[in-house]
Amino acid sequence: QNRIKMENYFDSGYFVTASEDGSFKLWIDGRVMIDSGFFFGDDNNFANGTETRRARVSFKTTLYDQWAGEWDIDVADNEVEIKDFWMAYIGFDNTIIKLGNHKMPFSMEEVTSSRYIVFMERALPNVFTLGRRIGVSYTKWADNWRIQAGFYGQEVGTGEESGHNESWAYAARLTYDPISEKGKLLHFGASYQYAIPDAEDDNKIKFKERPELHLTEKILNTGKIKNVDDFSAYGLEFAWQLDNIMVQAEYISQDVNRYDGKPDASFDGYYIFVSYFVTGETRQWKKSESEFAAVTPNSKKGALEIALRYSSLDLNDESAEIFGGKEENVTLGINYYFNANVRFMMNYIFVNNDEYADGDGDFIGNDDFQILAFRFQYLF
Amino acid sequence: QNRIKMENYFDSGYFVTASEDGSFKLWIDGRVMIDSGFFFGDDNNFANGTETRRARVSFKTTLYDQWAGEWDIDVADNEVEIKDFWMAYIGFDNTIIKLGNHKMPFSMEEVTSSRYIVFMERALPNVFTLGRRIGVSYTKWADNWRIQAGFYGQEVGTGEESGHNESWAYAARLTYDPISEKGKLLHFGASYQYAIPDAEDDNKIKFKERPELHLTEKILNTGKIKNVDDFSAYGLEFAWQLDNIMVQAEYISQDVNRYDGKPDASFDGYYIFVSYFVTGETRQWKKSESEFAAVTPNSKKGALEIALRYSSLDLNDESAEIFGGKEENVTLGINYYFNANVRFMMNYIFVNNDEYADGDGDFIGNDDFQILAFRFQYLF
Amino acid sequence: QNRIKMENYFDSGYFVTASEDGSFKLWIDGRVMIDSGFFFGDDNNFANGTETRRARVSFKTTLYDQWAGEWDIDVADNEVEIKDFWMAYIGFDNTIIKLGNHKMPFSMEEVTSSRYIVFMERALPNVFTLGRRIGVSYTKWADNWRIQAGFYGQEVGTGEESGHNESWAYAARLTYDPISEKGKLLHFGASYQYAIPDAEDDNKIKFKERPELHLTEKILNTGKIKNVDDFSAYGLEFAWQLDNIMVQAEYISQDVNRYDGKPDASFDGYYIFVSYFVTGETRQWKKSESEFAAVTPNSKKGALEIALRYSSLDLNDESAEIFGGKEENVTLGINYYFNANVRFMMNYIFVNNDEYADGDGDFIGNDDFQILAFRFQYLF
Repeated sequence: QNRIKMENYFDSGYFVTASEDGSFKLWIDGRVMIDSGFFFGDDNNFANGTETRRARVSFKTTLYDQWAGEWDIDVADNEVEIKDFWMAYIGFDNTIIKLGNHKMPFSMEEVTSSRYIVFMERALPNVFTLGRRIGVSYTKWADNWRIQAGFYGQEVGTGEESGHNESWAYAARLTYDPISEKGKLLHFGASYQYAIPDAEDDNKIKFKERPELHLTEKILNTGKIKNVDDFSAYGLEFAWQLDNIMVQAEYISQDVNRYDGKPDASFDGYYIFVSYFVTGETRQWKKSESEFAAVTPNSKKGALEIALRYSSLDLNDESAEIFGGKEENVTLGINYYFNANVRFMMNYIFVNNDEYADGDGDFIGNDDFQILAFRFQYLF
Repeated sequence: QNRIKMENYFDSGYFVTASEDGSFKLWIDGRVMIDSGFFFGDDNNFANGTETRRARVSFKTTLYDQWAGEWDIDVADNEVEIKDFWMAYIGFDNTIIKLGNHKMPFSMEEVTSSRYIVFMERALPNVFTLGRRIGVSYTKWADNWRIQAGFYGQEVGTGEESGHNESWAYAARLTYDPISEKGKLLHFGASYQYAIPDAEDDNKIKFKERPELHLTEKILNTGKIKNVDDFSAYGLEFAWQLDNIMVQAEYISQDVNRYDGKPDASFDGYYIFVSYFVTGETRQWKKSESEFAAVTPNSKKGALEIALRYSSLDLNDESAEIFGGKEENVTLGINYYFNANVRFMMNYIFVNNDEYADGDGDFIGNDDFQILAFRFQYLF
Repeated sequence: QNRIKMENYFDSGYFVTASEDGSFKLWIDGRVMIDSGFFFGDDNNFANGTETRRARVSFKTTLYDQWAGEWDIDVADNEVEIKDFWMAYIGFDNTIIKLGNHKMPFSMEEVTSSRYIVFMERALPNVFTLGRRIGVSYTKWADNWRIQAGFYGQEVGTGEESGHNESWAYAARLTYDPISEKGKLLHFGASYQYAIPDAEDDNKIKFKERPELHLTEKILNTGKIKNVDDFSAYGLEFAWQLDNIMVQAEYISQDVNRYDGKPDASFDGYYIFVSYFVTGETRQWKKSESEFAAVTPNSKKGALEIALRYSSLDLNDESAEIFGGKEENVTLGINYYFNANVRFMMNYIFVNNDEYADGDGDFIGNDDFQILAFRFQYLF
């Protein structure tokens, strides 16, 4: 085997080394995200504070033109966590066959990179997504549609025990974009996921969610739901974009299927947001992932984005006698993009909880409050 | 000091940056290994499952032509572990003086890189190796022989305590290859190691081993052996290669020396395997390490390897009244090399345990079963 | 956005990739430090041993000429810890506005990089520094002076709890160098810091320090000091350099302010050392940080440095009835620089403890002993 000469460049926010024909390529994806949050009007006296929200370094590679891989860790809060960790065959046109730890294809916002999400955190209904698991998925896309379906085991780092096989899950996401040109998008999507409880969880599952800031506590909490056979969810998604304006919305419904006469339970949530670039930028759309991507300011002065989100999550099911709480949030977001790599974010969140939103008994319920949060984000 | 210009290339499976004369060099060694395993006929009902077997990134360097170093971590299962972590003087011909965390020179298969081992896991007798420790070693080699000897403290991350100095160990490996040309190898080797129990272990040691798949449990287990003064082992190794056929075998014998009238104990194990490349490839041989190395497919279609291994480990010593169990395995291995960096492995293992093979009481003994295991391996 | 071509080089000990004009730049800062230590004449029977003292990899970047960032971890002892983790605006002349996890500007030796410190560990009074915290700081410098001031929250990885806001701290360091030319330095500095106890510590703080080797125990220990409102310290620093001779000294005084009638407490410490390069080298001085930096040997044979340090720390305050112990150390240091990246260090430390130096009851007090310590340091 001969040496293949590589060239180095900085492209679209990344440091890259690649062979001339692009068949061999290595690039770094680093993320420095530093958050702070302040609470107003909260009965629970939540702690103001700071944190390293994400501290990621990833090595992404293309090899022999037909293979791709990723090695990705996050060390936020001094704990190492494997994120994207997979290999893929990319030798067929517009196709990815991916194996390893990667996100299950469910929910548009879930699969959107944290580099590019419009608000500091994904919306409340994100609680229903299962995130990354070790599995295999197949993706195929064209100009106006995309499908991804996959089969998965458990998360990295979850235990195995004799007598309990690892659990499994599957999911699929199908999207259709009647309009998909530069600066013009009309997007529809639907996704479905099915899972059984983790091997070590003894047929119990739990849903719990923070009020859209990672520094806060999980106020919505169903507690352990026992006697669970399996649980499945479906999601619907919508997005529209015209130049510097975009709208995105999702609805997710979760069903829990139980045995031994325990009543089945169901929960749901939804969100809608609108974003507007005062400085005229258009957020990129990535067809191969069917998700929004990077923002590159039009001028050296940077880009200013204003966004408003309404989100709602209902973890109460009276018929099943589960009262995890209900929350409705309104968030004002202001993002300033100094360039493609440096972003300042400010979120002001109005949180409205019902009486059951008490962290399964750990907090005072019915706590309505506001959060002022800041993020400094540096990508390299 | 002036700037030294570096060139980038992809060479033999690695991304490299190096000065023209090679006196300064940096390359990345990344390993993505994703395993899954399924059990058949097991009384213990072992858990089928998946895992990230290795999640390594290493930075390897050459500096000023005379120095070398490595910084290497594994984050499999979301736990960080230092692997190779050393500096070395390489200014003398065919000589390495290495200081830091590195493998003790004992057993051919132990020192063979996990990138290149023929089966998913090293054979059962590997239980007797001490792996990486902080120490210093001297290596010298010529065309037909190689010697490495080293003195070591404890493993990284093991505790110190007042009143107990860190333990120490030493080892040496000597190899002689009457035939050593491209595609023709006849290799003999012998190694010896000596160690005292770790400072915090109160003169106790333990030997335990899995049935050649990391996803399983440590069924062979001597339990704690008390009153240990020191323990030493010797190993014999043999390898033969003719083009696309290779044979490798080792025998390891372990002695445990005890005080206060406790009887000394001894255990042993061995393995032999044969490998055959259907597609005609020859596995590389690395003289500087006296170990087998990379496989590069002859054609773009890839390379197919079939291998068969018999291994045996006996952790019973009736005279010492220690019954850790005995196991004999037969493994069929099929490896497909898509290229020098991407490999698919399948192992089918017939496991034959005796009545004492019960994980020191945690499992049902005499459990004979089969394992079907897969690995997807992506090196970058 | 177009591709920006990058060039690679090795410069002043670092592997660098940078655009021609330097406005985009990425370089690696790796540190392999392997220590061993041996104790003589100690009543406490401290454990001789080895360790990975530092196992760091850092990615440092400059982006768009005006921004800088760092992602830096240490994995020594198999535990991941975020070190420098920040972004900065560097668009104004001689100015850095830094946000994220970085060292508070207090004490010259504390802010000096571990790559370049003269002895294996910083001197005893370093116990009073607060190290890295998440915060924001402003730095401005000229040829003969420098100021840095910053406001901070808690350390990365410290917990938050409802009912307790994260603690905060601030610090400032001002330096003035009447003489500052190549090989001639006269440096004066003063710094101040103020902090309140961490949120989860219930108004308690503790000072504890090892005898200038990381492998030892924290023999000086005040135990928990209760009812602490806040604690502040000031430091004075002095340095002088003439070619291959340098002198550095600091004095730090710590005050603890308490409520509920508990008496305020105060402690202090100081050190002075002299270093001499037998081979004639001059240690670099970095004006932008107001600290000593790299040593580059004059010849290919390397550089030899001899240094002597006296340090003293008094954690006793009779008026406050706190007896953490007093220690005086004399250290002989010998450093051999094979080149700018490889250094061998030997420290011989004479430790002199008073009767209260008993690790808050865990050790025998009044233990006077010697330490022989070695470090092998490989930077890449």
